[in-house]
Formats: sequence, structure tokens, C-alpha cells
Amino acid sequence: MSELRRDPLFQRWVVVTDQRWDDLRTTFQAPWGGPPEVCPFCPGNEAQTPSEVFAVRQPGSAPNRPGWMVRAVPNKFPFLRVEGELQRSGEGIYDRVSGTGAHEIVIETPAHDADWGTLPGRHVAAILQVYRQRSLDLRQDGRIRHIVVARNAAGRRVQMPHPHSHILALPVVPRRMDDEIRGIQEYYRRKERCPLCDMVRQELGDGRRVVRETERFITLAPFAARYPLETRVVPKAHWHDFGTLDEGSLHELGDLLRDLTARLVALAPVTEYSLVLHSSPFYPGVDPQYHWHLDFRVRLPVGAGFEWATGFFVNPVAPEEAARLLREVI
Amino acid sequence: MSELRRDPLFQRWVVVTDQRWDDLRTTFQAPWGGPPEVCPFCPGNEAQTPSEVFAVRQPGSAPNRPGWMVRAVPNKFPFLRVEGELQRSGEGIYDRVSGTGAHEIVIETPAHDADWGTLPGRHVAAILQVYRQRSLDLRQDGRIRHIVVARNAAGRRVQMPHPHSHILALPVVPRRMDDEIRGIQEYYRRKERCPLCDMVRQELGDGRRVVRETERFITLAPFAARYPLETRVVPKAHWHDFGTLDEGSLHELGDLLRDLTARLVALAPVTEYSLVLHSSPFYPGVDPQYHWHLDFRVRLPVGAGFEWATGFFVNPVAPEEAARLLREVI
Repeated sequence: MSELRRDPLFQRWVVVTDQRWDDLRTTFQAPWGGPPEVCPFCPGNEAQTPSEVFAVRQPGSAPNRPGWMVRAVPNKFPFLRVEGELQRSGEGIYDRVSGTGAHEIVIETPAHDADWGTLPGRHVAAILQVYRQRSLDLRQDGRIRHIVVARNAAGRRVQMPHPHSHILALPVVPRRMDDEIRGIQEYYRRKERCPLCDMVRQELGDGRRVVRETERFITLAPFAARYPLETRVVPKAHWHDFGTLDEGSLHELGDLLRDLTARLVALAPVTEYSLVLHSSPFYPGVDPQYHWHLDFRVRLPVGAGFEWATGFFVNPVAPEEAARLLREVI
Repeated sequence: MSELRRDPLFQRWVVVTDQRWDDLRTTFQAPWGGPPEVCPFCPGNEAQTPSEVFAVRQPGSAPNRPGWMVRAVPNKFPFLRVEGELQRSGEGIYDRVSGTGAHEIVIETPAHDADWGTLPGRHVAAILQVYRQRSLDLRQDGRIRHIVVARNAAGRRVQMPHPHSHILALPVVPRRMDDEIRGIQEYYRRKERCPLCDMVRQELGDGRRVVRETERFITLAPFAARYPLETRVVPKAHWHDFGTLDEGSLHELGDLLRDLTARLVALAPVTEYSLVLHSSPFYPGVDPQYHWHLDFRVRLPVGAGFEWATGFFVNPVAPEEAARLLREVI
């Protein structure tokens, strides 16, 4: 059974599972990478995943059968489980919480080799619709403090190349999110304004770091980007909860993300990138101050080891240059 | 010219350099990996590096000539420079600091293919001696707030496979270090004790996460380890400054790190690992509370993408199991 443990120095939560070393060793010595006919995420193989909890599918098609565009299923090997009571306990200087929560997989498309950059914008919007529905459903569980939505496109180096995202419903707030919330709250205390609203205003006025502006969103290369080609999509108006995304915004965002992915892939010689959704955690008091956004990063084989070791980031590409490259690549 | 930029939400400093994208692209399309005869870190090629600032070498041998065991040189392509005045400036919601500081390389051994696990313990002690000397020298510069010492052993995938470490002297305190300092200070405020001293006591009493105990040090798998086989070496007595390491401790630590590296490499099928020294920053007031330690991590091809995307760590190997594996492997 897995559990959440908190580091007493960093106050950072880590999920610790109990895989056996020999099994793990086998995993990374022979990475899974079978052909599509054995891929459990491909159409026809729906029985190989747990039953779907939500899907966008053709009218009249049956659940857990072909005919879907996007499918959400519980992870077959979850490190957090809905069952069981949430238990918090201490052990000397350490803290533990039982591995309560949910871990779902969003199977983004029936096409095994697709990518966001080549899917139609409305298909990307359907993926976002599934994120929204799962976020609204999972938060009904009062034990859940935060929901993480993240996708990794990692080319052929991963166990599961079929396009998918992870949705984690957590009984704790991850350190990185907590840092961001604290930063936002401190800014509010000093200025009585939202820092992301200020960022939107300043970036639109400046223009050097803007990749693209659409009706409701701005895509920018953050001023202190840690990675080359790091980008952030922010709603121009103050808006704390991704769960309240309306249909118009959903489609605008779908088109925008399709276009941004295509730009990133056109520019970078590798196709490893990740996207993470930052939306308000379920704290009373935090909600109205938060401003949701999406962070997008391409993984390039530069500097990663140094950053991994030291936590100190060196970004060889100035964000102003990254924005220019992304504006001009297509 | 590079500069340090601070993220307004995370209050995290990032070095932003201004490499051209086309040059960078060339770098990662054709990683450097020439044979030893062109390696600038190999004996005989000393003229290819900037002049050494310190070396452990055979008595009578001349600087910048063969005869060295360990050599420290300024990085030929530094992203921080000693020259120029330290300038702090703002730009709307953003903060900047000029790229003032130092970036040195410790060339750890004349042997191009050596590793800490196969070097004699006294050679590892000589490397530690260079870390100590450079730390003591660089902190004389009053602009320096923190020194990072880190090494990456990254097999053949890196530009520079010859064993080396980085020493960074920074005019700011990295976010990760700042988090640790805040955690330590909060613990002191509540308990009037050092959390690392408490950790040493609790771990020695418990035993399950202890990899090895020597006269002055304990090696343990941290309770909330983020990575499989993550280990930490902590002095058993309260001790804030690595710079005051005496000869006895230096040699004990050299033997211990040689042994620990050999254990990690014996256990893991890859040879990518990193080591980072956490020693007191140069703050008045922090010094006496800090407790220095070394963090050691092996990079395994599991879970890295997920963590990279979300900042949320899933460790598939319980630290108790990691400690047992490391105790028993040799």
C-alpha cells in the first residue's frame, strides 16, 4: 500500500509506494513499447483498462467499446486509491498520510501515434472537456485538497507512448503549488492585486515575451523561465477555477494549444514536452485569489543534469528570444 | 551577458544566458564526446582550460602542467562572472540581478574514465579538500550569498564525460536552499532544537533507514526520499559549515563516499548519479542553526517525466527497502 510522506525540512509531500526492487529493475531494463495491437489504450482493447468513468463518444456508442474520441479511466496501477479512510499520523519528526485519493488516465485519442500538434483543435477541446468534467467530479470528495492534471509527450522512450494524461486527486497540496499560492497571497497582501493579472497587463504592454494573444488568453514566455521554450497560457481576465470553463473558452483554448504544440514541435528537434494545469486548490479563502494557467515545457538535452542536482536553473535561451522564435516558426 | 531573474510567483532565481538558438540546437544535435586525446580535462591538455586556481599535485610539479591529482579551474564558459559590479534592478513586477559570481570546475582525476566508486578513498578525500579550499576562498567576496557544489556522473550522454564537479558562487540564495533554511528555522522556533540533529537521533534509534554508520557520519535513506536509492550523508554532531572540515573527517568522508558510490553503482544498472553539498549560506544568523549534509541521487528511468511535469514526486522504492538494498549489496 502506498502512503504520502512529508519531508521535515522541505515540507514537501512524496508518494512512497512499495514496489519490489527486482520488479522495478525489470521495468527499466526492458521498457514496454509493444506494437499498437497490444496497446491497452487503442480502440478494441477497452476491456484491458478499468471501466471508463467518462468519455466523449459517438452518440449511441456503448461505454467501454470503440466509438470514443477521449476516454477517462482509473489507472490500473494507481498509487492513490479512493477506498479506505484518510489517515494522518506522525512518527517522531515525520508525518504520514494514507495513500487516499484518485489516479485516473485520460486516453486522449484513439490514434496511437497522434500528437496535440496534429489533432484538430476541436479534438484538443474535447480533451480539455474531459479534464473539466473529471475535475468537477473528483472535487465532490471532501478529502481532496488539490487536483493535478498533467500530460507528458515523451516520444518512444516511455512505457506507454499512446497519447494520455494523468489526473491526480490529492489529499495534500504539493509543495510547488503551495509555493505558488504563498507567492500569490503575499503579493495580494502587499498590493491588493492579483500578480497574474499584473503579469498579463505588463506582458501585453511590453510585447517582447508574448507568443500569441487571442480573445481570452495570452501565451507568453515567462520572465524567469527555467527551461528554453518554456511557455505559459494565462486567461486575460481574473479567473480562479478551470472547472468553470465555458464552451467558447474551451474551443478557443483547444485551438490555441494545438497551435502552440505545433510551434514547439516545429522548433525543437525532440518531441518530449509536458503540460501541467494549475488551477485553484480546494481551500476556503484561496479560491478567489487564484488565477489558473497552463505551463508548457519542452525537454531539451541541455542543462538538465545540473538543474536536477542543484535545483538551480540555468536557461540558455532568453525568454524574449524564445517568444520571438515561437512567433516566427510557423 | 547573463543575468539572474526572479519569478514573481515562486520567488525562484533563474540564470538566464543569451545563447543563440541555432548554436544551442547544434550542441544538442551533436553532443560532444570526443576521444580522450582531445579532452581538455585530460593531463597534457592543461593549456585548454583557464589557469588553475587551486590544485592538489605532486610536490615540485608546476601549475597548469601534468602532475596533479585534482585541479580547480574557472569554467571556460561561465554563466556567472567575477568582474563587474553587482547590480540589482526591477522592471515592473520582475526582479533582476547582474550575473555576478563565480563558476568553477573541479577536475576530479587525471583518469578520463574513472568514477568515485573505483578511485581510492584518499583520492575522493583530495576532491573534498578542493571543495573546502574553494569554498573558503570564494566566500571572501562579500557579494557572495551562497556556494553550490554539485557533481553529475552522467555516463556517456553528456558533453563532458571526464569526471568533474561544478562550484557556483551565487549572489542570491537558490529557492531550494531557501526552503530548507526556512524549514530549519521554523523547526528551531517551535522546538529550540536542530531538525537534522533530531533526524540523526531518530534514524540511529530506528535503524531501518540507516545505510551505514561511521565514527562521525550517518548515511541514510531519507524518510520522504523523492527518488529510489536517494541517500543523505549527515555529520552526527551539529556542524554548520563544510568549510571547517578537519583532516580526520575529510578522510573518513572520502572513504565513506567511495564506498557509497560503489554500492549505488553496483545496485543500479545505470551510472547516472549526482551529489550535492548543502552547507551554510553566508547569512548572519543562519550559520549556527544550519547542519551541513550531502545528498546523493541515482537517476533511474522511472517516473522522471511525471515528476518533471508536476513537481509531485512518486518514489516506487520505500526508503526502508532502499537502505536494506544498499546495506546488503556489497
